[in-house]
Amino acid sequence: MASLPPRQLHLNVNILHSGFVPSAWRTPDADPRAFIDVQHYIRVAQTAERGKLDAVFLADNAAIIEQIHFRPITALEPTVLLTAVAAATTHIGVIGTASTSYNEPYNIARRFASLDHISGGRAGWNVVTTADLASARNFGLEAVPDHGQRYARASEFTDVVKALWDSWEDDAFIGDKTAGRFIDPAKVHPIAHRGAFFNVQGALTLPRSPQGRPVLVQAGGSADGRELAARHAEAVFSASQSLEESLAYSQALNSRAAALGRGPHAVKVLAGLTTFIGATEAQAIRRRDDFIDAIPWDYSLTRLAGTLGTTPDRLHLDEPLPENLAVPAGGNGNHTFFAATIALARRKNLTVRQLIRELGGGGGHRIIVGTPEQIADDIAHWFAVGAADGFNLMPDALPDGLADFVDGVVPLLQRRGIFRTDYSGRTLREHLGLPFPAGREASRKAA
Amino acid sequence: MASLPPRQLHLNVNILHSGFVPSAWRTPDADPRAFIDVQHYIRVAQTAERGKLDAVFLADNAAIIEQIHFRPITALEPTVLLTAVAAATTHIGVIGTASTSYNEPYNIARRFASLDHISGGRAGWNVVTTADLASARNFGLEAVPDHGQRYARASEFTDVVKALWDSWEDDAFIGDKTAGRFIDPAKVHPIAHRGAFFNVQGALTLPRSPQGRPVLVQAGGSADGRELAARHAEAVFSASQSLEESLAYSQALNSRAAALGRGPHAVKVLAGLTTFIGATEAQAIRRRDDFIDAIPWDYSLTRLAGTLGTTPDRLHLDEPLPENLAVPAGGNGNHTFFAATIALARRKNLTVRQLIRELGGGGGHRIIVGTPEQIADDIAHWFAVGAADGFNLMPDALPDGLADFVDGVVPLLQRRGIFRTDYSGRTLREHLGLPFPAGREASRKAA
Repeated sequence: MASLPPRQLHLNVNILHSGFVPSAWRTPDADPRAFIDVQHYIRVAQTAERGKLDAVFLADNAAIIEQIHFRPITALEPTVLLTAVAAATTHIGVIGTASTSYNEPYNIARRFASLDHISGGRAGWNVVTTADLASARNFGLEAVPDHGQRYARASEFTDVVKALWDSWEDDAFIGDKTAGRFIDPAKVHPIAHRGAFFNVQGALTLPRSPQGRPVLVQAGGSADGRELAARHAEAVFSASQSLEESLAYSQALNSRAAALGRGPHAVKVLAGLTTFIGATEAQAIRRRDDFIDAIPWDYSLTRLAGTLGTTPDRLHLDEPLPENLAVPAGGNGNHTFFAATIALARRKNLTVRQLIRELGGGGGHRIIVGTPEQIADDIAHWFAVGAADGFNLMPDALPDGLADFVDGVVPLLQRRGIFRTDYSGRTLREHLGLPFPAGREASRKAA
Repeated sequence: MASLPPRQLHLNVNILHSGFVPSAWRTPDADPRAFIDVQHYIRVAQTAERGKLDAVFLADNAAIIEQIHFRPITALEPTVLLTAVAAATTHIGVIGTASTSYNEPYNIARRFASLDHISGGRAGWNVVTTADLASARNFGLEAVPDHGQRYARASEFTDVVKALWDSWEDDAFIGDKTAGRFIDPAKVHPIAHRGAFFNVQGALTLPRSPQGRPVLVQAGGSADGRELAARHAEAVFSASQSLEESLAYSQALNSRAAALGRGPHAVKVLAGLTTFIGATEAQAIRRRDDFIDAIPWDYSLTRLAGTLGTTPDRLHLDEPLPENLAVPAGGNGNHTFFAATIALARRKNLTVRQLIRELGGGGGHRIIVGTPEQIADDIAHWFAVGAADGFNLMPDALPDGLADFVDGVVPLLQRRGIFRTDYSGRTLREHLGLPFPAGREASRKAA
């Protein structure tokens, strides 16, 4: 009897400009212009590919929502930037964020399918609904659309995009020079979508892409977000501060996906993880503290207040969080971070100052401060108990925090037999162990 | 007294999939899959760069509007594809088409600014309003918006995009690690645009791009299209069948631009030109006829009928065009081609069959069938009398029709001293001899 292949860990890295820590651009080796320098992103992606990671990921905002006097922003548009990254790499996946609230499904279907063709099957789309007011005001609105409305639109949007990706049968392209037959029009189908938000006739301008469809990724932690993920997502970026939370999240999400007919464990859970790596734990802590000390407290208080839906004046550095915090009405896109941050503060009984330090200057993702061994132990443990299928790494600084991970942590995970020593496939789906999605005609014939 | 530098010719090439002739994909060396193969476009662009051309250009449609059973379509999304092209080249400009009717200005401003950053200042945006019904139906509409409405939207759209490109002062980025000052927020300005079509707050997520702004290109031949070009375009793709028409077009356009305060000869006119090149004229004619013979007459009649706003049954191969043809009401985007095609048929007194042959299987652009010497003579003559500042080349087949031009025609133009033997600049603006646009604060201070 053939043994099943061992379950494999998945590692994705968020290539957020200079790194996850707001002060990362201030380190001696950092180039402050990295956030708009394609060569920086290419170096980071090549480092990730050297480590055999599954994918690089670009978060995004369609507005300036950061405190720009102090830190870099998500500047370059992801599909364009990731095309340049794909051109400079050969195997690693490229996952880009695009908003369903401020785009048209035909354009998004086309851009990600184009990226999938150009990258040879390495594209993924991170579906977001965009909750900030600044973005709304860049697209003709004076207020952020209601949370439920945003997610209803996102769900229909994703339906339309999937239908467009499937609008050509797999063998619609002929290319017979002698007979002069280029494409079989009978195998290119209008989608004729008529819905609450969109009317889209189709077909797409492109044959099915190398992956059949780009990989669908999602990160919503709210009830609506989880429902969207259960329906559509093939991988999720989660943000749990504890193993128990992450395990419960993964189980609930996959149960719901199964109830929707998607089979067992259809959604890969990639838990957010910021790392501060040192040769010793003391060195790692010093690294973390140096980064935190380079962030003005005013900045951190403003950021934390934003995550918690409150104002900085209600937060006092040497006191615990105030009691009566509530997820902001209408949703600010930070359901996940809101809950995770409060849980962390309560569990460890932290003052605001301690909380900011524990958050690594970040907005709610879990951090580990330690040696490569400590980090590999933690990752292996979460993976072994099923709290995560992998991790969405958010290194403190880029590229060096990622290089430390690739050179220090990855070999330990490989030695444990839970992470690849080389790519066995060429597409992101193959890296993630996701099935090739059957096209519409194949599905119809099989039904 | 220093002599003025000699006026230089500009050459742009339309890298339309397998080439301009509908049967180009059927030639023995052609790869039928070229239309979705990034390596094909890269090879074409590298050939163009070897010839020191100013730019490559991608036309686009956000729908399938071709007879796909017979020929390739504009498939991959231009900004994504051109990013890959830019990554594989060093100097040549990359001009992509995007529609103002089916996009949001914030997204377009951001994507082209991103391409300009990533390419080191080589991006151009070809502004189109998209006139076909199939595109309208991919974006929620059941009819094509009225011609005037489309152009009014395009004009406001372009205003917004330019304002977003200028929303950061040139020195807004600081990047001072010691002081911890990243960007000067006082130099990043909301645009606070409130208009008939758009409300956009700004600022853009990006510093001004290497060219200040990507180059604005336009191709409209209608009255509304010319007005848009006179207001905004820095280069136009024109479609004149005769030198006289092109001269009149260029003079009228630049007079109007001057009347709008843009200075003398602000708009570079790049005349559309399809070439069939042979070592002898007879070989060139044979090449043209072989291409035409590989196109079914049914296809050509349908295409010609579309250009002329009529139906194929009204066209008879061995008779002249019917008398009472009129530009279709509402506009089909082919004002230019409609007029040019009818003018050609009348001037040469052609039957429909002869007209299709003279059009080179195309839709209204001028063609030259001849030796490199004949083509260089023609180009040099048009250039010398001011009928064009350059040409938008549409080689019969790609890459070989372009390679024949680069190896055969370009050296003759260089020998005449009207075309560069190497790039003297690095940006598309420098290639085209266009000024670096002053930013908003510089303009305000100068006023």
